[in-house]
Amino acid sequence: MKTDKLKEECAVFGLSLTTDEAAGITYNGLLSLQHRGQEGAGIAVSNSRSIICRKDAGLVNEVFGEGGLINLPKGQTAVGHTRYSTTGNSSKENVGPFVTEYLTGRIATAHNGNITNSKQLRDELKEHGIHFNATSDSEVVSSLIAYHITMEKSSIQGVIKASNLLRGAFSLVIATSKNKLIAVRDPNGFRPLCIGKSAIGYAISSESCALDTCGFEFVRDILPGEIVVIRNGEIILEGVKLEKKEENKGLCIFEYVYFARPDSVIDGLSVYNARFNMGVELAKEHPVKADVVCGVLDSGLEAAFGYSAQSGIPLVQGFVKNRYIGRSFIYPTQTQRDSAVLLKLNPLAASIKGKRIVLVDDSIVRGTTSEKIVRSLKNAGAKEVHMMISSPPFRFTCHYGTDIDCEENLIANRMSHDEICRKIGADSLGYISLDGLKTACSECALPFCTTCFTGYDKECHYGQ
Amino acid sequence: MKTDKLKEECAVFGLSLTTDEAAGITYNGLLSLQHRGQEGAGIAVSNSRSIICRKDAGLVNEVFGEGGLINLPKGQTAVGHTRYSTTGNSSKENVGPFVTEYLTGRIATAHNGNITNSKQLRDELKEHGIHFNATSDSEVVSSLIAYHITMEKSSIQGVIKASNLLRGAFSLVIATSKNKLIAVRDPNGFRPLCIGKSAIGYAISSESCALDTCGFEFVRDILPGEIVVIRNGEIILEGVKLEKKEENKGLCIFEYVYFARPDSVIDGLSVYNARFNMGVELAKEHPVKADVVCGVLDSGLEAAFGYSAQSGIPLVQGFVKNRYIGRSFIYPTQTQRDSAVLLKLNPLAASIKGKRIVLVDDSIVRGTTSEKIVRSLKNAGAKEVHMMISSPPFRFTCHYGTDIDCEENLIANRMSHDEICRKIGADSLGYISLDGLKTACSECALPFCTTCFTGYDKECHYGQ
Amino acid sequence: MKTDKLKEECAVFGLSLTTDEAAGITYNGLLSLQHRGQEGAGIAVSNSRSIICRKDAGLVNEVFGEGGLINLPKGQTAVGHTRYSTTGNSSKENVGPFVTEYLTGRIATAHNGNITNSKQLRDELKEHGIHFNATSDSEVVSSLIAYHITMEKSSIQGVIKASNLLRGAFSLVIATSKNKLIAVRDPNGFRPLCIGKSAIGYAISSESCALDTCGFEFVRDILPGEIVVIRNGEIILEGVKLEKKEENKGLCIFEYVYFARPDSVIDGLSVYNARFNMGVELAKEHPVKADVVCGVLDSGLEAAFGYSAQSGIPLVQGFVKNRYIGRSFIYPTQTQRDSAVLLKLNPLAASIKGKRIVLVDDSIVRGTTSEKIVRSLKNAGAKEVHMMISSPPFRFTCHYGTDIDCEENLIANRMSHDEICRKIGADSLGYISLDGLKTACSECALPFCTTCFTGYDKECHYGQ
Amino acid sequence: MKTDKLKEECAVFGLSLTTDEAAGITYNGLLSLQHRGQEGAGIAVSNSRSIICRKDAGLVNEVFGEGGLINLPKGQTAVGHTRYSTTGNSSKENVGPFVTEYLTGRIATAHNGNITNSKQLRDELKEHGIHFNATSDSEVVSSLIAYHITMEKSSIQGVIKASNLLRGAFSLVIATSKNKLIAVRDPNGFRPLCIGKSAIGYAISSESCALDTCGFEFVRDILPGEIVVIRNGEIILEGVKLEKKEENKGLCIFEYVYFARPDSVIDGLSVYNARFNMGVELAKEHPVKADVVCGVLDSGLEAAFGYSAQSGIPLVQGFVKNRYIGRSFIYPTQTQRDSAVLLKLNPLAASIKGKRIVLVDDSIVRGTTSEKIVRSLKNAGAKEVHMMISSPPFRFTCHYGTDIDCEENLIANRMSHDEICRKIGADSLGYISLDGLKTACSECALPFCTTCFTGYDKECHYGQ
Repeated sequence: MKTDKLKEECAVFGLSLTTDEAAGITYNGLLSLQHRGQEGAGIAVSNSRSIICRKDAGLVNEVFGEGGLINLPKGQTAVGHTRYSTTGNSSKENVGPFVTEYLTGRIATAHNGNITNSKQLRDELKEHGIHFNATSDSEVVSSLIAYHITMEKSSIQGVIKASNLLRGAFSLVIATSKNKLIAVRDPNGFRPLCIGKSAIGYAISSESCALDTCGFEFVRDILPGEIVVIRNGEIILEGVKLEKKEENKGLCIFEYVYFARPDSVIDGLSVYNARFNMGVELAKEHPVKADVVCGVLDSGLEAAFGYSAQSGIPLVQGFVKNRYIGRSFIYPTQTQRDSAVLLKLNPLAASIKGKRIVLVDDSIVRGTTSEKIVRSLKNAGAKEVHMMISSPPFRFTCHYGTDIDCEENLIANRMSHDEICRKIGADSLGYISLDGLKTACSECALPFCTTCFTGYDKECHYGQ
Repeated sequence: MKTDKLKEECAVFGLSLTTDEAAGITYNGLLSLQHRGQEGAGIAVSNSRSIICRKDAGLVNEVFGEGGLINLPKGQTAVGHTRYSTTGNSSKENVGPFVTEYLTGRIATAHNGNITNSKQLRDELKEHGIHFNATSDSEVVSSLIAYHITMEKSSIQGVIKASNLLRGAFSLVIATSKNKLIAVRDPNGFRPLCIGKSAIGYAISSESCALDTCGFEFVRDILPGEIVVIRNGEIILEGVKLEKKEENKGLCIFEYVYFARPDSVIDGLSVYNARFNMGVELAKEHPVKADVVCGVLDSGLEAAFGYSAQSGIPLVQGFVKNRYIGRSFIYPTQTQRDSAVLLKLNPLAASIKGKRIVLVDDSIVRGTTSEKIVRSLKNAGAKEVHMMISSPPFRFTCHYGTDIDCEENLIANRMSHDEICRKIGADSLGYISLDGLKTACSECALPFCTTCFTGYDKECHYGQ
Repeated sequence: MKTDKLKEECAVFGLSLTTDEAAGITYNGLLSLQHRGQEGAGIAVSNSRSIICRKDAGLVNEVFGEGGLINLPKGQTAVGHTRYSTTGNSSKENVGPFVTEYLTGRIATAHNGNITNSKQLRDELKEHGIHFNATSDSEVVSSLIAYHITMEKSSIQGVIKASNLLRGAFSLVIATSKNKLIAVRDPNGFRPLCIGKSAIGYAISSESCALDTCGFEFVRDILPGEIVVIRNGEIILEGVKLEKKEENKGLCIFEYVYFARPDSVIDGLSVYNARFNMGVELAKEHPVKADVVCGVLDSGLEAAFGYSAQSGIPLVQGFVKNRYIGRSFIYPTQTQRDSAVLLKLNPLAASIKGKRIVLVDDSIVRGTTSEKIVRSLKNAGAKEVHMMISSPPFRFTCHYGTDIDCEENLIANRMSHDEICRKIGADSLGYISLDGLKTACSECALPFCTTCFTGYDKECHYGQ
Repeated sequence: MKTDKLKEECAVFGLSLTTDEAAGITYNGLLSLQHRGQEGAGIAVSNSRSIICRKDAGLVNEVFGEGGLINLPKGQTAVGHTRYSTTGNSSKENVGPFVTEYLTGRIATAHNGNITNSKQLRDELKEHGIHFNATSDSEVVSSLIAYHITMEKSSIQGVIKASNLLRGAFSLVIATSKNKLIAVRDPNGFRPLCIGKSAIGYAISSESCALDTCGFEFVRDILPGEIVVIRNGEIILEGVKLEKKEENKGLCIFEYVYFARPDSVIDGLSVYNARFNMGVELAKEHPVKADVVCGVLDSGLEAAFGYSAQSGIPLVQGFVKNRYIGRSFIYPTQTQRDSAVLLKLNPLAASIKGKRIVLVDDSIVRGTTSEKIVRSLKNAGAKEVHMMISSPPFRFTCHYGTDIDCEENLIANRMSHDEICRKIGADSLGYISLDGLKTACSECALPFCTTCFTGYDKECHYGQ
């Protein structure tokens, strides 16, 4: 079911340790990356001879919990995956990691991103007689790697050869049955990937927050196009780069706007600081006379801090979020249109009654949720609601892994600025400018992909 | 398993409507009261001839979800219950509501509180040949009421007679098979209870937040010792008071400190405002030189706003809370003592590194969690951590429904102020004074029970 | 859903041991009594101070399995119950045993049978202010006993007093928190109940088969109207009889025809022998020219042995039963009307093709199943099918615990003998005569209740 | 956990219909083949464009039940699989059917048997860069077929090419995304496979019993080495034979002794008749003076009929089988060694007490179960027990799919005839001779594989 929110595709996590508790720590790592994918989870453990994988649909703790880990072996090397969306026929089949046995061993591959030439690669592999069991990009990636490892007679060379054939977004973590842990980030660096270190070895993670929570110290981001190989807790190769970069893109700027956890640091920029800065820029670009600033929980909170700091308008807690709702069924009452929104996010009348409010959120997709939230504030006594959005109008679908609505449903494609403002019932509406957003993120070491705001250049459509 | 947190016992919710969707709206109501009890949930629906009840161990959505409601009939009158702790042998048996069939009908009783003379009442009932199936106070309450309804030949008189025999804390919501909804609050008013109204009838709720989210407008609090009777969506009796009040107590002040949701208004005082004021008082009583203020999520957040406002020290987001952890199993790593705390609450280095921090929390029970949180801030780069607690030292167990640790485990009973400060690793420690706390809550219409801070007078021990 | 089969209500089992493994052995006992009730199961264990009970809807192994027993304490005294039908609103609530706490202790009561004056007893108890939580007879029985134990100040005297007030069918096993195990059988002896002994104590069971499988030697049947009390593995009272017997009935003859397991011995007569004899009588009353005899699995098998032995017509295996079907969903194909029957019971063409068959079954209720079975034999090549039924035509509903269809649906009430024969497609149809059935069961020590064949005398309707 | 019974590996079932209800009827077919594999089940449906597969560990009704079928599409072509044992690391991964996507389509392959050269084939495929996800033979089979379909550019030619490379036992049913249903039986015909027809199309089944229960008329057995192709409910190819047959084997004779359901007809011989004849031969080879004959339920029943018919000793029902035990946990009592056996199979004292018994069973593996059964008969009063076994001594493990114990555990390898007789406590012991067994099965159209009795010729070890 399409909701009124953007979805990220996946998170990846990998460990190469000198001890044998890779499975359990990978489980903890995935718990901290659960925000990047709630529909499936898997862990594969290499115990130096073979690779055992367990994966299923569901949240990380539903798939593994205490009992689930029992079925995983002790081992020094592991990769984990959480998956959001269900491309393909069967969600279960497309959850990673994918384990592939080739001539001289096995690999387990976890993939975050979207391959734009996967159909072509799939067909080329099929012409060699290679077959597929599932329908996801990730299976193509793992097959391609296994194929080239067999051909190159070297796992590292095979990964390099295969990665050079991939187009689009990919952050990969691969465990081999020979205890190698291989990390690859595509030449654009669309999706984040970083390295952490502790006394017992190295971790690779989509976001640095999982390094913190698992006791690893952040070492550095993996560079766009870089391959890093770790074995038995030691880095044995780094700095090797993939050959080419056809797309002229960069890090997906929505990682800062919405996807990543605020306690992560990505490519040199704290996500928290980036969002705070977006609030600062918003306040500069869209100053309003108001009594209080509040953020839509949880995604608008950090930008609200920034707006408040820049504008001097005090920050208040505007809502109480029900911590227990999650994916609960909500009974649809006949007497109240907005029960689902209120059950999740109830306005805090004590702090907003009679007030002119600056309400900060990260984005507007279809506009239906924004409309309900503004109405709930007004019903609770807000005098004015000025909606501030920490991203530019969202108008284009994404080829690189963000699962958004079809373009016709995007409100920014169907309505003018003023129409949107009226539709959501706000007294004014301000989007951050693309320049403002880039300024907020200027400490990032990479250029950005901002295709969802600006549209595609012709040359990047080759793979679809 | 004892955790390092206080537990509330229960929430109650009831509806008397002119339409027949009482079950579904009660379900939504319980979702909004889930914070008061996560171990069991039940709903009983009266369809004017009989009462059907479904209840089980688990969260509200686990017990009912979409499928579970199917088993409940259409009906205008319903009561619901969420339960926290598992006094008695079997958690399932002690989940409410309790349905009791007596001579001329059936009642379903939902109870929040703790009866101090339940053993005596239980024995007196047994002498009449009455027997019991479960071990909870709530079964005694429902039996006592059923017995006196039979004797008095009137459901209202029976409830009054029975309620006058009860000692301790009780907020009751009772549905009868004759479509009456009866609400009773004990003469001290230990636990909150309020009335809401909408176009389709009346709701009774432990907290006003559930009125908001279910589309009912707050009407008023039920007064201490008051009985209110509603039938077919109309109030048919109110203002009747129970006879006596042996304890000289009042509303449990911990409702403001910790139990209630900040968007509830209890006895005239917004919980949000109460907590904000506690922060203000803390800043007055314990001013410190610091760079930032932050609250422990979620319970210290509102007081942190107050501390910041009073002190002028800017508020920052000091932690990121993992929204998915809940009751998940966390793998115990050998290499890091604090993984469970970090997985739940990761310090946000970007906002606290190198800073002198005022850290605001609601209470310290055993001290183990506070110690881990302070350490995690220091590890993340905090220069100083000044711990501010928005309640006085917690030293006495409670007879009225708060499930706290035995007194020997309460750190405030075992250590001096300075010892606690050193134990938790803080640079300074400030508890709000009892006077400060009362000042913060001075707009409440009732006196307070503060026994957990001050200890028991002799006269209130009669029932135990 | 009504099926085309009779249903029994319950089985009871109890233990008084000198060791503390009563729970586990009661579980095994219930496994052997599962044929008497598949909708719910429960076990209550007395550990000399209290009684702990676990029960739920489902098969015995679904409710307890390996994990379920963990929640039951060690104890010397236990009672167990399996339940078939779901009278009352909620199947879960009406599963036994019922645990009741009265003035000086607790009892757990397991009940097999049907109380004909339960409404009257329920109302009388309610007039004393006693209330009820569930809707089953069994709760009335346990309440009545608890009430009279309180009044009599003696568990044994209370049980006698209460049992003397009960009318209808009841085989009771009661555990007290003082480690007494009390067995009661109604004065008519409608339902079986027997005692077994081993080195570690005594067992009470609905059927002797559970004594065999649990390692207890059969001692004797409990006599109609008798009360037996066992404590700590020793009989402390036996031979005490209830006062009166208003109904002039006896053992339900359907225990021999269908309900009991063939390896049980009830009131002096082996169920296997009784059924074998029924086949012998059928052969005498309805001799036919045929090539083979076969029984409908499993309920007609023993009578088929008897028919074959008497007639000299060889017995063959006429069907193969699918051991895995149980309560499985069967896909309803459009192309074949009888798929469900064939999936459960496939004719064995090798043994019946071209043969004139005597087909023996225990009873015909609606006739729909018989029709399908006869048709499946004919489709598989049977030349003639002569249907022999080891009970007289079934025409009256039962007040004593057999859950049969309403009388209008009983085929023997709607059609003549010849019409039934044509309807089910048989070449001839023979029912055993009531005299023949009694002859087959003549070794039974008790008179019989044959009301379902002969109808009710006026005097026995008093309780309904 | 190793039990004291032989295990079969799998069953296969396939449909090619002119209607679209292939999924539901395949489900019914698998229910009737459940005896050939209880550890996993799967169904794949081709809807002429794609193939959708659902499979999981568990019984057929656990995997699919009513809800599970909802996830399968309508379609005319389907294949199903039940699996017994768990070779490989993960039972789930190795359940069939296997779906494989190749250059121009998809196939779903269900496999019954054991490939003796699978490691070699696997390695050859890997050298082409082909990789594997699971560890079972069945994945190798499906990969090999997909590879050769790609190479041959024809699904039929590809299946033939691939099948000619396979060694060992294989009965295959393959669905293609072009609506072809292809059946292959290995040149030895180790495992059965037959064709049925109805008004709506054709079915392929491991055993004919599933044809009966699904409403298909038996047409014929698929010949050893034959390939049959059906499309849209019409046979489009039959009689094509695989090239070679290196092993000089035939149908596994244990299909008649134990594996198949007695209502199946395999290669011209009714399984019921085969077993009956085994009993006849046993009575000829091992006449004893006895009062009654009884079979061990269920596997010795048919041979007991034959022994009784030949010897004139009357057949009795010697045991009552608990229909509800299945895989239930049984509480291990300290006081009785044989509780598990008695709970499953209780001697029927009424028919065996004081009797000299001929007890017929299909085989003795470790001897532990036989010992318990003989003891239980003696404890129940049997005077003598003469054990008759309808297969020769079992002494060799099997390369073709029968999952038996290691040879050291086979009692026939460790003890002499007399020692076995003493060990199991029988008064005499008779095994059928291999010639007797072959005589009993002489109507079978195929030669037999009797390797488990006679051992391996050297030449058949090439593949291991």
